Amino acid sequence: MKETKDTAIAVIGCGTVGGAVCEILLRDRDLLQSKTGSRLRLKYIVDRVFTYAKNLQLDDTLFETNLDHALEDDEVRIVIELVGGITKAREITEQALRAGKHVVTANKALLAHHGAELMAVARENGVSLAFEAAVGGGIPIIRALYDGLAANSIDAIYGIVNGTCNYILTEMIDKEESYEEALWAAQSKGLAEADPTLDVGGADSAHKIAIMGAMAFGIQVDFDQIPVEGIDNLQQEDVMYADTLGYVVKLLAIATRVGEGISLRVRPVFISREHALAWVSGPFNAVSVYGHTTGHTMYYGRGAGGSPTAAAVVSDIIAVASGTYQVFFDRFAFWPDRNPPTDLIAVAETYSRYYIRTMVDDTPGALARIASILGEHGISIASILQDELPENNGADQEPHFVPVVITLHPAKEANVLQAINEIDELDATGEKSSLISIVDDHPEGVS
Amino acid sequence: MKETKDTAIAVIGCGTVGGAVCEILLRDRDLLQSKTGSRLRLKYIVDRVFTYAKNLQLDDTLFETNLDHALEDDEVRIVIELVGGITKAREITEQALRAGKHVVTANKALLAHHGAELMAVARENGVSLAFEAAVGGGIPIIRALYDGLAANSIDAIYGIVNGTCNYILTEMIDKEESYEEALWAAQSKGLAEADPTLDVGGADSAHKIAIMGAMAFGIQVDFDQIPVEGIDNLQQEDVMYADTLGYVVKLLAIATRVGEGISLRVRPVFISREHALAWVSGPFNAVSVYGHTTGHTMYYGRGAGGSPTAAAVVSDIIAVASGTYQVFFDRFAFWPDRNPPTDLIAVAETYSRYYIRTMVDDTPGALARIASILGEHGISIASILQDELPENNGADQEPHFVPVVITLHPAKEANVLQAINEIDELDATGEKSSLISIVDDHPEGVS
Repeated sequence: MKETKDTAIAVIGCGTVGGAVCEILLRDRDLLQSKTGSRLRLKYIVDRVFTYAKNLQLDDTLFETNLDHALEDDEVRIVIELVGGITKAREITEQALRAGKHVVTANKALLAHHGAELMAVARENGVSLAFEAAVGGGIPIIRALYDGLAANSIDAIYGIVNGTCNYILTEMIDKEESYEEALWAAQSKGLAEADPTLDVGGADSAHKIAIMGAMAFGIQVDFDQIPVEGIDNLQQEDVMYADTLGYVVKLLAIATRVGEGISLRVRPVFISREHALAWVSGPFNAVSVYGHTTGHTMYYGRGAGGSPTAAAVVSDIIAVASGTYQVFFDRFAFWPDRNPPTDLIAVAETYSRYYIRTMVDDTPGALARIASILGEHGISIASILQDELPENNGADQEPHFVPVVITLHPAKEANVLQAINEIDELDATGEKSSLISIVDDHPEGVS
Repeated sequence: MKETKDTAIAVIGCGTVGGAVCEILLRDRDLLQSKTGSRLRLKYIVDRVFTYAKNLQLDDTLFETNLDHALEDDEVRIVIELVGGITKAREITEQALRAGKHVVTANKALLAHHGAELMAVARENGVSLAFEAAVGGGIPIIRALYDGLAANSIDAIYGIVNGTCNYILTEMIDKEESYEEALWAAQSKGLAEADPTLDVGGADSAHKIAIMGAMAFGIQVDFDQIPVEGIDNLQQEDVMYADTLGYVVKLLAIATRVGEGISLRVRPVFISREHALAWVSGPFNAVSVYGHTTGHTMYYGRGAGGSPTAAAVVSDIIAVASGTYQVFFDRFAFWPDRNPPTDLIAVAETYSRYYIRTMVDDTPGALARIASILGEHGISIASILQDELPENNGADQEPHFVPVVITLHPAKEANVLQAINEIDELDATGEKSSLISIVDDHPEGVS
């Protein structure tokens, strides 16, 4: 083995993940050195306050409140950005890169919004920006995209990349709870924030698909073009109908090729119980990738939590200390700063199967009207489910709205939305229809 | 990006995988170059006959029957060994390494038996030996062990790594077929060989756990010490009882720490339906890895087939052409040639939960005798299942053997085997009892 070089490291931000990174670097220094040949030396723990760091009993001689001290220290080769948020994190990352430090980050929001720009700064300064921990916590999914699946042209990615949402959905299914009840359960277990918007609204998943999509397809993504729908408007009836129809509701982050273009989107979908992702329950994450030579592979594990996320950060530190990451970063073409901004295909232009639940007045002819609207838009019905009703004795002239559940063959989303609008305007229909796309298995291009 | 270097490649053995590798290298040359910055040039396709290569319409100017021509060509940097078998493959690999060529192989049998020795030869000659395709086909599991999970001390690996066995077991479960019927179905679909011994007997899975175990734990494995049990003696009744008890029967390749030692083993087990591996069906493979910081991660995909396996070979070619693989191979300590031969812990010394099915004469006291034998060996019963019997009117003095199904709390395998021997010797028991270990979830050391 090569002689061991000592790699000095500054961790910026000592919260849950930062604290866990420091713990691993201090506790496992000998293990990591004997395994990887790199001696990783934590030299600075930079933060404003050290209450949490002290609770972890981290070595207080490493505490530093002045970031510049760490960045001006020529010994420091790698800076770990774990402050979170965007504005401050962007400043710190840029400053560190300009100071000639490699940066390792777990900050998906930062990368989704400013990844290309920061990678370009890294390159100008002869250093690299690594971010395995930004997607899927401890799951080495970013490596799969830049290394393991290198022989592939990627066709599609489907990811369950938000543990909070997956936990809430699993609760809604297993315990037949409403969204509100399940959210409360997640919050009381510490699996959802007091303000859960970033998770349940889908933005966190969108950050992650922006990062994966850019690398998988070799494009630069404008984050604001990604259509995002969270689980916060999901109705329990639809979750139950999914089960009846052989599906499971999951919040998916999706990236697919559509003709010559790329579509990225985040939304709750009905996923077939036959699909490997359907079984990913509770706080676990998983990402399915479809490559033109490898076919379907899936990567599963803990998508959050201090230790798994910190392990991904440390795997990047090892890769930078060993020099492997720089080779991928230098030679490979799919990093977003190397590709021009690419307009995404509007989701209205994508094709999918769909589930519709419409509340229909049980008068004769209502269903025929609905079927005829779908037909006028060239949309083909795959199945209709309407439970039998108590007989209407005619004495009562009030409308009786009952759910009609329709699944569609593949159709263009724009057409389906148009048809749904017309259906919802009928006198014979009640509240706004539910519309959820259906994901069966993605076709594999290989045998 | 760095200037593109042309990397000349010789593929030795043009069968299913070799043919697919050649196809990818020829068809996707521009894609791979634009993606990875490496220009991969297939220069020789070496084989004795080219019937298959001609069927694929591969460029016949590359055909070469004389291996020496390829090895003596200084332009050739990477040799792809895909001849299969051990003796000839070992000769070719050693010859190529001594000629200063990097070798990429998919040959698990070769690596399980001679991996350490060949890696040492590679190192002496300043080259590397890469083998992503040897385990799990297209799944980048070897990379997870040497790169993605680098921050971990690995606690355990559980792998479904033989698609033939997994297909047969899925058939036995879904269609309630016997082993023989399911094997026949697999053979008629081309998913099992005419002589399926290597697959169904477990040796192929053992090759793969030998490779993964060596890297995960940083040891040199003596292949002959791995206890191997296949699916060929599995009885359909036991497969059905698994279902009744909430389990699924899977052939697992297992590597675990046991005290200061390591146990590797291959056997059919009852795996809890709650475990992510339980849902891996048909010809798919998956490997669960438990690391001390990342916790549980799982890697899923097509474990065989020309294109997925070839994609893994090509990912190694790219890694060698880029120079990343050499860094891992040079700097990291867990390669088997860098560790002394390690005696495995005998499986009799391992602890597990167990399932026992004993045929018992339905005379009073028989069950009590069994329970008392287990108790004498310090084994604690978790559950007993005995279906109600038609009443014995006493007129008939023949023994009525009925199945009694017992599950155990964790016990030492040696003790369980001893107890089973004594139970099988009782007059009150019939044919040999079934004994199958139970895998619930492996404890994760992280939150």
